Amino acid sequence: MRLLFLGDMVGKTGRTAVWERLPGLVSDLRLDFVIVNGENAAGGFGITEEIFLETINAGADVVTTGNHVWDQKEAVVFCGRHEQFLRPANYPAGTPGRGSGLYFARNGARVLVANIMGRVFMHPELDDPFKAAEAILEAAPLKEQADAIVFDFHAEATSEKQCFGHFVDGRASFVVGTHTHVPTADHQILNGGTAYLSDAGMCGDYDSSLGMDKEEPLNRFISKMPKGRFEAASGPATICGVGVEISDRTGLAEAIAPLRLGPRLSETIPPFWA
Amino acid sequence: MRLLFLGDMVGKTGRTAVWERLPGLVSDLRLDFVIVNGENAAGGFGITEEIFLETINAGADVVTTGNHVWDQKEAVVFCGRHEQFLRPANYPAGTPGRGSGLYFARNGARVLVANIMGRVFMHPELDDPFKAAEAILEAAPLKEQADAIVFDFHAEATSEKQCFGHFVDGRASFVVGTHTHVPTADHQILNGGTAYLSDAGMCGDYDSSLGMDKEEPLNRFISKMPKGRFEAASGPATICGVGVEISDRTGLAEAIAPLRLGPRLSETIPPFWA
Amino acid sequence: MRLLFLGDMVGKTGRTAVWERLPGLVSDLRLDFVIVNGENAAGGFGITEEIFLETINAGADVVTTGNHVWDQKEAVVFCGRHEQFLRPANYPAGTPGRGSGLYFARNGARVLVANIMGRVFMHPELDDPFKAAEAILEAAPLKEQADAIVFDFHAEATSEKQCFGHFVDGRASFVVGTHTHVPTADHQILNGGTAYLSDAGMCGDYDSSLGMDKEEPLNRFISKMPKGRFEAASGPATICGVGVEISDRTGLAEAIAPLRLGPRLSETIPPFWA
Amino acid sequence: MRLLFLGDMVGKTGRTAVWERLPGLVSDLRLDFVIVNGENAAGGFGITEEIFLETINAGADVVTTGNHVWDQKEAVVFCGRHEQFLRPANYPAGTPGRGSGLYFARNGARVLVANIMGRVFMHPELDDPFKAAEAILEAAPLKEQADAIVFDFHAEATSEKQCFGHFVDGRASFVVGTHTHVPTADHQILNGGTAYLSDAGMCGDYDSSLGMDKEEPLNRFISKMPKGRFEAASGPATICGVGVEISDRTGLAEAIAPLRLGPRLSETIPPFWA
Ligand SMILES: [Fe+2]
Ligand SMILES: [Fe+2]
Ligand SMILES: [Fe+2]
Ligand SMILES: [Fe+2]
Ligand SMILES: [Fe+2]
Ligand SMILES: [Fe+2]
Ligand SMILES: [Fe+2]
Ligand SMILES: [Fe+2]
Repeated sequence: MRLLFLGDMVGKTGRTAVWERLPGLVSDLRLDFVIVNGENAAGGFGITEEIFLETINAGADVVTTGNHVWDQKEAVVFCGRHEQFLRPANYPAGTPGRGSGLYFARNGARVLVANIMGRVFMHPELDDPFKAAEAILEAAPLKEQADAIVFDFHAEATSEKQCFGHFVDGRASFVVGTHTHVPTADHQILNGGTAYLSDAGMCGDYDSSLGMDKEEPLNRFISKMPKGRFEAASGPATICGVGVEISDRTGLAEAIAPLRLGPRLSETIPPFWA
Repeated sequence: MRLLFLGDMVGKTGRTAVWERLPGLVSDLRLDFVIVNGENAAGGFGITEEIFLETINAGADVVTTGNHVWDQKEAVVFCGRHEQFLRPANYPAGTPGRGSGLYFARNGARVLVANIMGRVFMHPELDDPFKAAEAILEAAPLKEQADAIVFDFHAEATSEKQCFGHFVDGRASFVVGTHTHVPTADHQILNGGTAYLSDAGMCGDYDSSLGMDKEEPLNRFISKMPKGRFEAASGPATICGVGVEISDRTGLAEAIAPLRLGPRLSETIPPFWA
Repeated sequence: MRLLFLGDMVGKTGRTAVWERLPGLVSDLRLDFVIVNGENAAGGFGITEEIFLETINAGADVVTTGNHVWDQKEAVVFCGRHEQFLRPANYPAGTPGRGSGLYFARNGARVLVANIMGRVFMHPELDDPFKAAEAILEAAPLKEQADAIVFDFHAEATSEKQCFGHFVDGRASFVVGTHTHVPTADHQILNGGTAYLSDAGMCGDYDSSLGMDKEEPLNRFISKMPKGRFEAASGPATICGVGVEISDRTGLAEAIAPLRLGPRLSETIPPFWA
Repeated sequence: MRLLFLGDMVGKTGRTAVWERLPGLVSDLRLDFVIVNGENAAGGFGITEEIFLETINAGADVVTTGNHVWDQKEAVVFCGRHEQFLRPANYPAGTPGRGSGLYFARNGARVLVANIMGRVFMHPELDDPFKAAEAILEAAPLKEQADAIVFDFHAEATSEKQCFGHFVDGRASFVVGTHTHVPTADHQILNGGTAYLSDAGMCGDYDSSLGMDKEEPLNRFISKMPKGRFEAASGPATICGVGVEISDRTGLAEAIAPLRLGPRLSETIPPFWA
């Protein structure tokens, strides 16, 4: 199975780039399943229902999020209306929306996708991400309820990300980190067969600070005082993601490689799909 | 000028790999200058004088460090004995050792190397890294006192790293992040001509948690209690670094690309050196 | 019912002061129940079984702890042997020891004591302290299973402490914060009848940094480098605690006032016991 | 010299209480100098020029601030117009306003007041608070340029506060912490003669979360999701502060005791002024 994951779309430039390129990628690369992180799609802060729908329309099967999920107030309402929209699973019971779901890929495979948030340097108030993963895996073990299992682990610390990868190794098809907005080059298949990448990076303007116009962030690092608001950068976006080839037989990973398209970073397509 | 930077050597496996491979790289790639981060070379915690000397012996021109610099007590003493050893420059005045130095490359160029530590999620008690860089750049501007200027910016947060890059853009040859132990794939030449990479990754065992045996870190994420000590992982190391081609004329970057050698990550050599 | 809570005993001077004064306080003030926080009793770091037993021997009915609970390795073992020893309740299921217990006071009342740890600025990896409290209160509601309910809420942030107080207001007899080692003067009875104090302070040498010899902590704030180890201060200790009068009828608080005995802080005894 | 310090005024209820009570306190207690922290006076977030002027009008000689200083945008402008307005001194050179000033007390004494912000758990991007204090003390040593020296040390961590106290002990008249909004009871005169209190508490509604209406903060601790905005609580305020008797001869402290007036906390007036 051919699965593509695209990192956090940031602002108009990021989401537009995804909307423009994704349909072609789906057909050219014959993708079976596409996941896109959308937590920064609305000006850098959250996502609207309209943006969500447009992203699904462009070919995404699931839109994941992260710490910015509630930045647009309407998310609290529309998150409950769409099965393909995920907020982090380790919010407490009773939180609107869902943190994981079972979806059908174009090849008929059942794909379990879960969005989980890390806590180190981030959100101590969330539930244990390791326990959340455990519960999800127990409810739908690989090759029983699901033909593929993917975690979008939205976290800051590389230690927490790597340990999370080892924790589900052999029980999930793929763990991809998000949140730092910087793509990492440590893609590998762990000992148990789970594909792993610490961070997918973002889909946005890489002449920026994390996709935001660099002037105000830089001003704050220098003057230590706010001067204006944070606004999404508007230069041309580079799409960052990662492709994984998942075995139909075992549900584990056969290959993993980055996908990068755009003007600022080195472009690449998973060689096993070229 | 051909400059190679290697990320944090972690433990025996990491430093041994560097010692074994570096001499060949220096001659095969005709490297003019080599910088290696050594903050985790001694079992993951700090560096000894013996390890430092062996690394210089293997071909490093400068050894940089970071938050683990003082983990081995002897560092407080030997840091003052060796010009080629750098601790973060933004320790207060009076701190033993030095945070930057001017060195001669094999091609005769004068290379200014500075080691600076970020503060976000890290060490609020250090001096302002941006001011520290400013002072260094004012004392030895590019193409006046130095033919090339390189910053090892040891930091956690990608926002601080990117803003630091923009801050010195056009005034330094190269900014490379370290500390997360995960190589990033966002190498680019910024608008002003400075080569930039958010993190060089580590030279160590990538079947691990940041180069440390994964058992105890994973135990702590699950049980929230210490069971044993953190120990360096001992599997075969992957060397992670980055090569930069620096213009003799402008001191700015002409090309940047990662270098990765070893069993776990995708191997690559800067194409402009191949 | 007369309940006395004493803050974190720090080092030899702190625990010795408690051992010497507590028997007299129990008889002079005709105390029905005594809780002492012992997380720093062993040189500032954790507590040994011997120290625990001596503290029980001096008149404590329960010894609570906090983030330092496992500093002495033997705690992992002996915590399971003593009902009167509590570690924070919001460690995950399967953690040795217990986080709450039901005890008999000298007047025959059943006293539920729970030790819970905050997460803000502290330990994001622990379970939700609010949920932990909810579970405890549901299992043994006030005036059903318990005649009095006391929470030692070990936390840093005053916002988390105050919100915790409001959360259990009317359902617990008393919430006392610990961990900052500084006694606060905000004792009050909340609207629902729960006595509240943000921090009990410590039993230790107040000519110090949190009960530790001030030289090394001060050195680190100034030089940003370790010079030696942290050691408990050894000057005469001031005992800091708080007395609460709990209604036999409602289980809620009738009065709360601090108790301080020693050379550095203003001495005081709850006026309703004088 | 009789010096009164009042903690952070929070919202309308806090500032109104101060404005109503302060004139009477100045005359009844024959105060020579009054400092009030105003960082939360405007609805909990910052301070306006009008509120500042009204506070001066009520009898304050200096208004200090903290991390909320820039919350009201106009502060960036008016901070430069008023010598009696202080923002934290450890902002970088070039920041609008001033961090310390020399003032005349009603008894003719020259009083140096400095506002400094801590960094632990707070603002790593600010300059070293210890160095900032050192520079201030060197520029105007006690009994040379100043007859009294007072630091409002706005910080979270008790360790940083206590170490700051020891750092200036014997060189300042008084160190008072602010920011936690909870009054501490650890007032003492340090070995060198400096009066010290870890936190003055706030002037605000103590049936709240730090002076803010408790509903939304509590909601966030429970649901982990924002539901509304933070708003200042509106119940009757308790005034919290501390009185210090400073020697005209030495500039050091002769006595220190809390002042608390209002409905929720135990009321007290410095006994040496009663
Ligand atoms: Fe994001
Ligand atoms: Fe994020
Ligand atoms: Fe490192
Ligand atoms: Fe590091
Ligand atoms: Fe403690
Ligand atoms: Fe503690
Ligand atoms: Fe405040
Ligand atoms: Fe504050």
